[in-house]
Amino acid sequence: MIDKSYNLKLSEKFIINNFLKKLSLNKPGTFNFENDAAYLNTSLKNKTIVTTDTIVENIDFFTNDPPESIAQKIICVNLSDISAMGAVPKTYTLNLSINSKIDKIWLRKFSNHLSKMQKKYNLYLLGGDISRSKEVSVTVTCFGESMLKNIIKQKNTNIGDDIWVTGELGNSYLGYKIFKNTKLRIEKKYIKKFKNFFLFPKPCMFGSKVSKYINSATDISDGFYGDLQKILNNRIGAKISRDLIPISSVLKKILKDNEKTIKFSDILSWGDDYELIFTSYKKNRKKLLSLAKKNKVKISLVGEIIKKNGIFDDSSKLIKNISSFDHFC
Amino acid sequence: MIDKSYNLKLSEKFIINNFLKKLSLNKPGTFNFENDAAYLNTSLKNKTIVTTDTIVENIDFFTNDPPESIAQKIICVNLSDISAMGAVPKTYTLNLSINSKIDKIWLRKFSNHLSKMQKKYNLYLLGGDISRSKEVSVTVTCFGESMLKNIIKQKNTNIGDDIWVTGELGNSYLGYKIFKNTKLRIEKKYIKKFKNFFLFPKPCMFGSKVSKYINSATDISDGFYGDLQKILNNRIGAKISRDLIPISSVLKKILKDNEKTIKFSDILSWGDDYELIFTSYKKNRKKLLSLAKKNKVKISLVGEIIKKNGIFDDSSKLIKNISSFDHFC
Repeated sequence: MIDKSYNLKLSEKFIINNFLKKLSLNKPGTFNFENDAAYLNTSLKNKTIVTTDTIVENIDFFTNDPPESIAQKIICVNLSDISAMGAVPKTYTLNLSINSKIDKIWLRKFSNHLSKMQKKYNLYLLGGDISRSKEVSVTVTCFGESMLKNIIKQKNTNIGDDIWVTGELGNSYLGYKIFKNTKLRIEKKYIKKFKNFFLFPKPCMFGSKVSKYINSATDISDGFYGDLQKILNNRIGAKISRDLIPISSVLKKILKDNEKTIKFSDILSWGDDYELIFTSYKKNRKKLLSLAKKNKVKISLVGEIIKKNGIFDDSSKLIKNISSFDHFC
Repeated sequence: MIDKSYNLKLSEKFIINNFLKKLSLNKPGTFNFENDAAYLNTSLKNKTIVTTDTIVENIDFFTNDPPESIAQKIICVNLSDISAMGAVPKTYTLNLSINSKIDKIWLRKFSNHLSKMQKKYNLYLLGGDISRSKEVSVTVTCFGESMLKNIIKQKNTNIGDDIWVTGELGNSYLGYKIFKNTKLRIEKKYIKKFKNFFLFPKPCMFGSKVSKYINSATDISDGFYGDLQKILNNRIGAKISRDLIPISSVLKKILKDNEKTIKFSDILSWGDDYELIFTSYKKNRKKLLSLAKKNKVKISLVGEIIKKNGIFDDSSKLIKNISSFDHFC
């Protein structure tokens, strides 16, 4: 109500009618964006799982990043949390704060990519809000479903649990280093590939498939070690076989060629992998491997939960320089 | 992940542990803020109503506004939407984007005021996210409950419906004009009072009390005429008795003393009153008045829904200069 100096060429109504309404897919509860609020159509046997994340220009993305990347990142960070809870994503709300640099082309690319993500992950847009601001920022609140008994808790970890990781780690971090123009010895053909790992992260949606068989889980949004610490909760410890941590052979080669610039521990202490770390009883190994195969998800057994507080390597040596990325300091 | 130049003195963990955790009230579903997501404990007979709003520094509030005012505004805009849907608010998520100017004192005041609002409106904090940004911005996504059949739709308006308004209009707009240092003839004793109407808006939570007896509703967040137009949906019209529009005698006097500076129509075309406009069958008049009395809410019958598209006065003259505040242009 106060300052109208950041005039936009496009009105809120125009943006909603031309770019956002189509994302509601005419689902009941959305009221086709013509109401003060919406409602959730949660199945009676399930609980609604809620997560929310904000990404901000110059912090979580670059000003000139492709709008498709911004759309993918905000959906990815949310879906990854829903998966870590063992839930299936259903719908989301969108708060878009934009300035006068945002034009129709930007909005078309952004909303088309949201539409693409919706198809891939079976989502629809429930509602939202558009505001003006100096910096672009995007908030998504995502709603998933799970039976109460299948919700995975981050800290329900037991001594003796296997520690598993999905996918491969470090790819997004290397992409980030390339963007930051770090001088690297790297074959040209890999540059775009790793940039895309950073620009277009993919959530691992394995959580709901294995929720019955795992004890605790979290997604890797702040680096492997930092997120592992969340599961340990300053209460117990982990013994990690560093050789078993899944890193692609291409990345291993690049790390070897650039060992002075990027340390192995860096890629485990940083970065938005959006893979899952989870723990499970040893008796579930076969079941987990079979579910992974069925769902075409790579999973790696990387260690074990131990009584002693801290993160240790195979020879019980404390892994030094444990630092997790904190969005704040 | 990209730019760490807006360092904060306070880490995300510190802010959560010291200022936000207490707002969860240890409710199930919040996991005491120690999980990737939370869950909603919606009663089985109800639907979860969802609304979301973002307020941004220099747009929706001044940089040096009291933190208590910012907390009150973001809760108010959300509760007002929940009320307009006929629902009862239950819980909310908070996305706080802050910069290095935000210190412990600010956070203490902000979170203490949220706590006060929670007590008043029977809410708890479900979860949230903290980000860094140049400008402060706050997003709240609020969850209410209502039986599906009692959800009020904004556009379920019928020809012949009575048009009702809650509370008194225009107080916040005058407060805003005072803040903008508009030269006004106004008694000193009223200055603080009207500033507070602007800084500390109160949602009218009457929606859920009357949802069974009304056809359509919306909250007044963009001015009476603009919000009335939402109900009319460019499909039907309204005949309004301007004399019956509820404006306090103090405000009437101030308007009279300042008729060159503020027009009567301004206070109906602008401003965040957070009162409700609703329409109802004529047969429900007695019931509505009795419910209003019971709930200590002032309601005023201000007009009637008519077939002819537009907003007209008593003598069927088109009310000119209809303009609603658009957050965008």
